Amino acid sequence: MNKKVAVIMGSDSDLPVVKGAINSLKLYEIPVEVHVMSAHRTPEIACEFAKKARDNGFGVIIAAAGMAAHLAGILAAHTTLPVIGIPCKAASFDGLDALLSTVQMPKGIPVATVAVNGAENAGTLAAQILGVYDETISNKLSMIKEKMANEVKEKDEKLQVEIWWKM
Amino acid sequence: MNKKVAVIMGSDSDLPVVKGAINSLKLYEIPVEVHVMSAHRTPEIACEFAKKARDNGFGVIIAAAGMAAHLAGILAAHTTLPVIGIPCKAASFDGLDALLSTVQMPKGIPVATVAVNGAENAGTLAAQILGVYDETISNKLSMIKEKMANEVKEKDEKLQVEIWWKM
Amino acid sequence: MNKKVAVIMGSDSDLPVVKGAINSLKLYEIPVEVHVMSAHRTPEIACEFAKKARDNGFGVIIAAAGMAAHLAGILAAHTTLPVIGIPCKAASFDGLDALLSTVQMPKGIPVATVAVNGAENAGTLAAQILGVYDETISNKLSMIKEKMANEVKEKDEKLQVEIWWKM
Amino acid sequence: MNKKVAVIMGSDSDLPVVKGAINSLKLYEIPVEVHVMSAHRTPEIACEFAKKARDNGFGVIIAAAGMAAHLAGILAAHTTLPVIGIPCKAASFDGLDALLSTVQMPKGIPVATVAVNGAENAGTLAAQILGVYDETISNKLSMIKEKMANEVKEKDEKLQVEIWWKM
Amino acid sequence: MNKKVAVIMGSDSDLPVVKGAINSLKLYEIPVEVHVMSAHRTPEIACEFAKKARDNGFGVIIAAAGMAAHLAGILAAHTTLPVIGIPCKAASFDGLDALLSTVQMPKGIPVATVAVNGAENAGTLAAQILGVYDETISNKLSMIKEKMANEVKEKDEKLQVEIWWKM
Amino acid sequence: MNKKVAVIMGSDSDLPVVKGAINSLKLYEIPVEVHVMSAHRTPEIACEFAKKARDNGFGVIIAAAGMAAHLAGILAAHTTLPVIGIPCKAASFDGLDALLSTVQMPKGIPVATVAVNGAENAGTLAAQILGVYDETISNKLSMIKEKMANEVKEKDEKLQVEIWWKM
Amino acid sequence: MNKKVAVIMGSDSDLPVVKGAINSLKLYEIPVEVHVMSAHRTPEIACEFAKKARDNGFGVIIAAAGMAAHLAGILAAHTTLPVIGIPCKAASFDGLDALLSTVQMPKGIPVATVAVNGAENAGTLAAQILGVYDETISNKLSMIKEKMANEVKEKDEKLQVEIWWKM
Amino acid sequence: MNKKVAVIMGSDSDLPVVKGAINSLKLYEIPVEVHVMSAHRTPEIACEFAKKARDNGFGVIIAAAGMAAHLAGILAAHTTLPVIGIPCKAASFDGLDALLSTVQMPKGIPVATVAVNGAENAGTLAAQILGVYDETISNKLSMIKEKMANEVKEKDEKLQVEIWWKM
Repeated sequence: MNKKVAVIMGSDSDLPVVKGAINSLKLYEIPVEVHVMSAHRTPEIACEFAKKARDNGFGVIIAAAGMAAHLAGILAAHTTLPVIGIPCKAASFDGLDALLSTVQMPKGIPVATVAVNGAENAGTLAAQILGVYDETISNKLSMIKEKMANEVKEKDEKLQVEIWWKM
Repeated sequence: MNKKVAVIMGSDSDLPVVKGAINSLKLYEIPVEVHVMSAHRTPEIACEFAKKARDNGFGVIIAAAGMAAHLAGILAAHTTLPVIGIPCKAASFDGLDALLSTVQMPKGIPVATVAVNGAENAGTLAAQILGVYDETISNKLSMIKEKMANEVKEKDEKLQVEIWWKM
Repeated sequence: MNKKVAVIMGSDSDLPVVKGAINSLKLYEIPVEVHVMSAHRTPEIACEFAKKARDNGFGVIIAAAGMAAHLAGILAAHTTLPVIGIPCKAASFDGLDALLSTVQMPKGIPVATVAVNGAENAGTLAAQILGVYDETISNKLSMIKEKMANEVKEKDEKLQVEIWWKM
Repeated sequence: MNKKVAVIMGSDSDLPVVKGAINSLKLYEIPVEVHVMSAHRTPEIACEFAKKARDNGFGVIIAAAGMAAHLAGILAAHTTLPVIGIPCKAASFDGLDALLSTVQMPKGIPVATVAVNGAENAGTLAAQILGVYDETISNKLSMIKEKMANEVKEKDEKLQVEIWWKM
Repeated sequence: MNKKVAVIMGSDSDLPVVKGAINSLKLYEIPVEVHVMSAHRTPEIACEFAKKARDNGFGVIIAAAGMAAHLAGILAAHTTLPVIGIPCKAASFDGLDALLSTVQMPKGIPVATVAVNGAENAGTLAAQILGVYDETISNKLSMIKEKMANEVKEKDEKLQVEIWWKM
Repeated sequence: MNKKVAVIMGSDSDLPVVKGAINSLKLYEIPVEVHVMSAHRTPEIACEFAKKARDNGFGVIIAAAGMAAHLAGILAAHTTLPVIGIPCKAASFDGLDALLSTVQMPKGIPVATVAVNGAENAGTLAAQILGVYDETISNKLSMIKEKMANEVKEKDEKLQVEIWWKM
Repeated sequence: MNKKVAVIMGSDSDLPVVKGAINSLKLYEIPVEVHVMSAHRTPEIACEFAKKARDNGFGVIIAAAGMAAHLAGILAAHTTLPVIGIPCKAASFDGLDALLSTVQMPKGIPVATVAVNGAENAGTLAAQILGVYDETISNKLSMIKEKMANEVKEKDEKLQVEIWWKM
Repeated sequence: MNKKVAVIMGSDSDLPVVKGAINSLKLYEIPVEVHVMSAHRTPEIACEFAKKARDNGFGVIIAAAGMAAHLAGILAAHTTLPVIGIPCKAASFDGLDALLSTVQMPKGIPVATVAVNGAENAGTLAAQILGVYDETISNKLSMIKEKMANEVKEKDEKLQVEIWWKM
């Protein structure tokens, strides 16, 4: 049976960012569950979720949070599944607070951190993780990688026929 | 009955820093309990401790942690007592990661943050908090404040009789 | 008699931020006094206020200032009451200047620092401090904490019935 | 057959850091291959390695590099396997340059970034990734997590019988 | 025969920035080729381009990229031509991530880095490099330098006849 | 009568830095008074000193402090004399906290800030200020400036006769 | 005869900022000359100006520049008059580049640095410098300081009659 | 005739760093002149040198300076030759002040900036610039690039025969 991916956001204000991860997972046809759970407001629900995640059929947990972004770390504390952290940009510091709060985890409890607001990549990374042992997903990853390359090539070709930058 | 203060450190490597808080609390003769509890390695013990802290006679919780310092925030999530956070300097970033992880808490769950490695001040702040309604402590706070002022005055007086800096 | 909380802002341009603290204190039905006092333009008024704050029935002082935010520190220098500092975001550095000016206090004179522009949390922290010995306030803190948790749960439940993110 | 993990370092000066990842992988009895390959000095060898990594039996690639740390990103460009980046501290900036160069990847090419010099966690994360579908590894992860918790508990118990901090 | 300059951008979203470099090169009448090539999406095309750049008549390569800006470094890895890096400002960190990713190159593989979004200067620097041995270009550089000085002088003169700032 | 310069340090731990300012002032034969006064521990003494400084024959006040360096700003609040601030490096952040706390002063209360630990320059700047209307001092400033230039020239000449760097 | 103040901006794009300094100087009725001079585009004019500034009746030079803000430093290199630097905010880094370029001057060549975009304070500081030996100016400084204090007091009084923040 | 490279350092304290550039240039057998010249202490000598550099047979100028590193920018202001800036690490900020002061140059006056203390790369970049039109140098660049690659390969081969990291 296919493993699911959980996408947890610390606050529903992170939803516009988190959509990138959901869309990315849909692209790989990976079943996804989306939740609002807070490390600080509903900590017990979050911990409980993380503890049972493997038994409930999840393979990866993605957590998005801003400011003192503790969510990914707290989830990682309660599971041995890989946890991907998306540091979200909030009102100050361009997400540096969330980045450091997410990535600088102590020994034993890693969080796989992606770029600030890098939700699409969180989805892709989850697909890569599930794709280690799942050929269907790894084939899709290769196809989409090729597609991305082609888009860049097309943009370059288009640029060559434009003449504005030529003398 | 006098309220106790809990001093929690995320790792015993934070002990040299944390001692400053303990000594400061002893100065004010405030009963103290010291624990090693980790937001990531023993999250349930930490949460349980915070939940019962008020009933167990604590008035303030001090939490010291470095890197992605989630400890103070996680304790604050489980209590309505004031939680004081000491961001500890670790191998990188001079404690900026711990400072931002401690101070940038979301709405509803404050952490009273002191300076990086500012453990003595965490102890003094705990004394100030308990001293709001406790005259014995607030008197001690005034006395020690006066003593600090006198020490500065003495240093200045001593400097005036030194002649090295005069022409 | 109930202790009051003083909310001091360094400049009336900080008022939009400071309102968060006032509203938060109203929520806990804590009597509040609001003042504009500047560490640099009216330093004597500010110092005098801090010196007499305890005798005038205050239990906590909240100070909001931006840039080289000296206000909270200067007030703390003249009282043994707990002083909460709100670093305000100004034209540059996203409030980092105010955060460091507020939190990095020397030994003996702590300032309980909250997040940049974190005025609501300053109010909540003041309530937590007064709630150490005041059961009415601590009960309200528990109720509001529960309410916050319920709001998160409702948002999560609402998200589960939405179908846009499902395949 | 068990997937291998590749540990690639950009320069042999990163070896002292990288050992943490190797030891961590040994703990989980995961087969490991270690290489010195440079994104800038031997780019073709590095790219070739990444391209063939899946076919050569690797499940995860760990890359450690300092300064303008391009290694993890370049490897990720040539594979659909998950790539874990360890930003290494070099002579300046406490590893901030390497952290940003590793984590701030553009859409489509994620790097799962761990803390600055966080090599042990890179190893643990690799184990978590392989453990999604491998029960032997996931059981070991649980055991070691429990062991870590016990170590913290023992430290706390030991602290309780010490009396230096009591009045 | 005159050497050409290649202007490579990592993504077509960098085009508004890159135009500054193209216009600057046109000013010096230096033949220019413009391409979209990605260090991560079309790495082989980029490497191939760099490898053959000298034989294809290029004298300098300009590379513009944002975030974890690996493009200039990767091109530099495959050529002995001077490579100029333009760190581009993206959604976070005001281009600091791109600056550090571009400038902090390891020994042996320099990238000549200009200011964040400093595309005009990248063009001018390319002209200066080609002008070392090309008197036509170096004469134009002198003329434009003089023109810039004259513009500043005229602005100053204009300011002197304005009276708003006088008492 | 010659104006004096006051050199105030927030803590006697700043003395090793402050010596640079004293020596610099001696060089210009400017009478100096040195004090330890704290913005937080002896605020009234500091404010009183600043208020009377002009009447007591001072022309410039130099203030050195680290961390949340409020000293220069507080002195400036109580005088219309120019106040020079030396941000001192303390245990964290390489003096960035002190620099921002010193330089980011609000409208109306400037502090003339020099480099982190830049005490010699604080002394020189004080001499420049007094030298605006004092020809003896301005002549010494010119002489010492020339001497500095000659030292650089001699170092360059010495380097030319060394051969280690020649082929 | 009264000393003049020179206000030099590196580019006319700094004019909106620089106006604050001019207005501030007008307030103190200090004669002012305003120039556009660039450390990089018209370096000789700038150096010449600084060299002759004292003889031409100037007492203070104010220099405003952004990015790699060399202007104040270069002027300071050619005069023994006090030079005040205004770091201007440009497209990136909120003026941090300009702040560090202005304040971190080497031994012997101080620049009296004010806040980012702190032009009003540059004017006030110039007045304070000229006011050391000029009673007319120092009296005006006292009057304006008092006026500022009164404005704050009035704002506070107005706030007390407003009732919105009362329960 | 072969163009020379000038290596200018702002202070002889930068000599240990600058040696890397000299050794690198010797490797390519490029004639080099080394000078101590200060943007602030001997500005006229520095400007004069830059103005005549092209006529005196120089093809590239390398400038090394720390703190408010104005040297490279000032030299660039007086020449149309390419100027390479080496930001040097000084007592504070790990060279960030020097990096921003060097790289953030305004339009029209580029400085080709290398890594903090990246002197070897400054030498290599100078060789690459002269190698655009000089086949002897470009051949040496290719040889040394190959040698670097071989060193990495050898280190990797050596690592494969070591067994410490194998199970």
